[in-house]
Amino acid sequence: MLEMASKRFGSVNNWLCLILLETENVDLDSLISVTSGWLDGSGPQSDVVISCRIRLARNLAQFPFLSRADDFERTEIENFIREAAFKNLEKTENKQSDAMLNYSDLLYINVDEISDIDRQFLMERQLISRELSESHGARGVVIADRQQTSLMINEEDHIRMQVLRNGFNLDECWAEINQVDDAIENEVSYAFHEQFGYLTACPTNVGTGIRVSVMLHLPALVQTREIKKVFQSMQKMNLAVRGLYGEGSQAMGDYYQISNQITLGKSETQIIDMIKGEVPHIIDYERRAREALLAENKQKLHDQVSRAYGILRSAQTISSEETLHLLSSLRMGVNLELINVPKIPLSNEILIYTQPAHLQKKYDKEMNSQERNSHRADYLRERLTDAEIG
Amino acid sequence: MLEMASKRFGSVNNWLCLILLETENVDLDSLISVTSGWLDGSGPQSDVVISCRIRLARNLAQFPFLSRADDFERTEIENFIREAAFKNLEKTENKQSDAMLNYSDLLYINVDEISDIDRQFLMERQLISRELSESHGARGVVIADRQQTSLMINEEDHIRMQVLRNGFNLDECWAEINQVDDAIENEVSYAFHEQFGYLTACPTNVGTGIRVSVMLHLPALVQTREIKKVFQSMQKMNLAVRGLYGEGSQAMGDYYQISNQITLGKSETQIIDMIKGEVPHIIDYERRAREALLAENKQKLHDQVSRAYGILRSAQTISSEETLHLLSSLRMGVNLELINVPKIPLSNEILIYTQPAHLQKKYDKEMNSQERNSHRADYLRERLTDAEIG
Repeated sequence: MLEMASKRFGSVNNWLCLILLETENVDLDSLISVTSGWLDGSGPQSDVVISCRIRLARNLAQFPFLSRADDFERTEIENFIREAAFKNLEKTENKQSDAMLNYSDLLYINVDEISDIDRQFLMERQLISRELSESHGARGVVIADRQQTSLMINEEDHIRMQVLRNGFNLDECWAEINQVDDAIENEVSYAFHEQFGYLTACPTNVGTGIRVSVMLHLPALVQTREIKKVFQSMQKMNLAVRGLYGEGSQAMGDYYQISNQITLGKSETQIIDMIKGEVPHIIDYERRAREALLAENKQKLHDQVSRAYGILRSAQTISSEETLHLLSSLRMGVNLELINVPKIPLSNEILIYTQPAHLQKKYDKEMNSQERNSHRADYLRERLTDAEIG
Repeated sequence: MLEMASKRFGSVNNWLCLILLETENVDLDSLISVTSGWLDGSGPQSDVVISCRIRLARNLAQFPFLSRADDFERTEIENFIREAAFKNLEKTENKQSDAMLNYSDLLYINVDEISDIDRQFLMERQLISRELSESHGARGVVIADRQQTSLMINEEDHIRMQVLRNGFNLDECWAEINQVDDAIENEVSYAFHEQFGYLTACPTNVGTGIRVSVMLHLPALVQTREIKKVFQSMQKMNLAVRGLYGEGSQAMGDYYQISNQITLGKSETQIIDMIKGEVPHIIDYERRAREALLAENKQKLHDQVSRAYGILRSAQTISSEETLHLLSSLRMGVNLELINVPKIPLSNEILIYTQPAHLQKKYDKEMNSQERNSHRADYLRERLTDAEIG
């Protein structure tokens, strides 16, 4: 059970909201049963692109950077931003022109007060970063729009806001995060320098404070060993290649995150346009590698995909790594029409729900690695048998 | 399509039989759809013992040994024994006291005239030996009693007769092969020496000419590496350990054949009794190894068995070796009640039907190794899906 402030706009007035903010306990466990909007697999180019994300780093002008803030100041920053977010995101929704935003499901989670498992759970859902999860003191996250928008408070910077979308859909990410950014700026003054742009804790974020990233599924490029060429070409373009969980994480199960490294000297749209220009080449490259694998030995590929499915729905114990690896085969198989089940939304969902904290939340107990492997297998058999019947 | 003489006793008289013997073409392909009686999995100790077999080597007194026989003599021997078999096995059935024999399904296959695939098919069914399959000139096999009895003509010796039974059932093998032996001896004189006993082409068979063998399934002893102790103890007892297809074959998929090496200086029943005394120790040893594996890590074993099932029913291409290996896990799993499907009879059946010649007969075409692997997977998916529904 977790302490969480919840506010539902539109249906209640401001006064009532304030009461709720102070007194209502909402169970974070309720999140476990709701799949994130960006996982529904319906986005553009979803055969290769899992999701895309834009995040902005911002700091408040009237407070010191976190590296120099004391506990009292951290708490002040947290309160100030949380209140600004709740007040102004509401306003944003009320504007006729901003109908796209649906922030009636706004939640606040006090990350300092929740358990390690809950922190990991939020991280596995891509709602908070490892940095926010592992740091100390007053900090939290505002979550909205079917878990597609989150605003972290007191991460490396005062504010890290992000918008996620399924598939290759950076325009929607950009339109929405701009609204969120504007809405917050209605209330606060950002640390901004006329020459450098937005000031941030780490120099690599100074300028636009933007990070644009795209999560790609590249099984055929891995299998044909052509992925190295992608790495080389990304390096030349000053783009970073990372694993499923961003900075510091290993690429597993053929999932790779491509993102910009430069935030200074270019505008936000120039950076977005560069990624929008580069990623289609990788998508095309991956698709051609899949066709080549099919042409070379369709049966071998079919066999690999079918066996992956056979193991996933029959194992009695299975590691997170093996699951990712087999799901990767399966996802490619569904996209190449070598196999019918599970569909992409389910395979995206399984990807998230078989992570350690998700399993512990779902089965409502702390588990060691061996117990998790066992429950992961239970979950997979259950989900994949349902998929077959359904 | 194969040339084959067929004779059905009881329903037709001798005269008609003779006509049939000369003119009827029976398709050997019909054998493919009939599972051998010894595969039905119902025998004693069938959790560990697949089958047992007794074979007798005999030579006719009035003909030279095969190493010294010319083509004309080989043909004479073949005709002589075939006719003796058909005439006398019929008589055997007609005796009231010998009601156990059911030789109404008596078949003769001229092994010299059939294709390589058909020869391999008979070998995979354990109806003929590699020696009979690969040698040249007039030779054949009489098949009876739901493929549990076969009598090879012009193998290494003039006659090699065998009786197979499912499970550990040597008494039945012995009772039946004695009747077959007596029936043949009604008509022919065996090469017999007062001091040495039955004379055979190879000195290792002189005396009783008996080989008693038991096919064991020892997955737990292999997994716990205790199988070496079994080998050592068998060696001390002068017992041979061989693979699935007898002499010269490797042990695969945890299937081991134990048989006597000595045929001289002991009576048939002494040899049978020795095997009957030794095998229960191995059975017991294997059962205790299974219990130990269960006690040590039941989940790991359950996982191994479930995955084997998952792969067998989902692979799109699979080798004979991998199939044997996975079926072995599955068979143990069924016996330990870790999994419900497939039942033992089906798992025995699959063991035989996934062999190369069986697949080619079933799908009615010659196949290279890659095609066989593909059709093997088709067959497994079909059989195991049926099993689940049924």
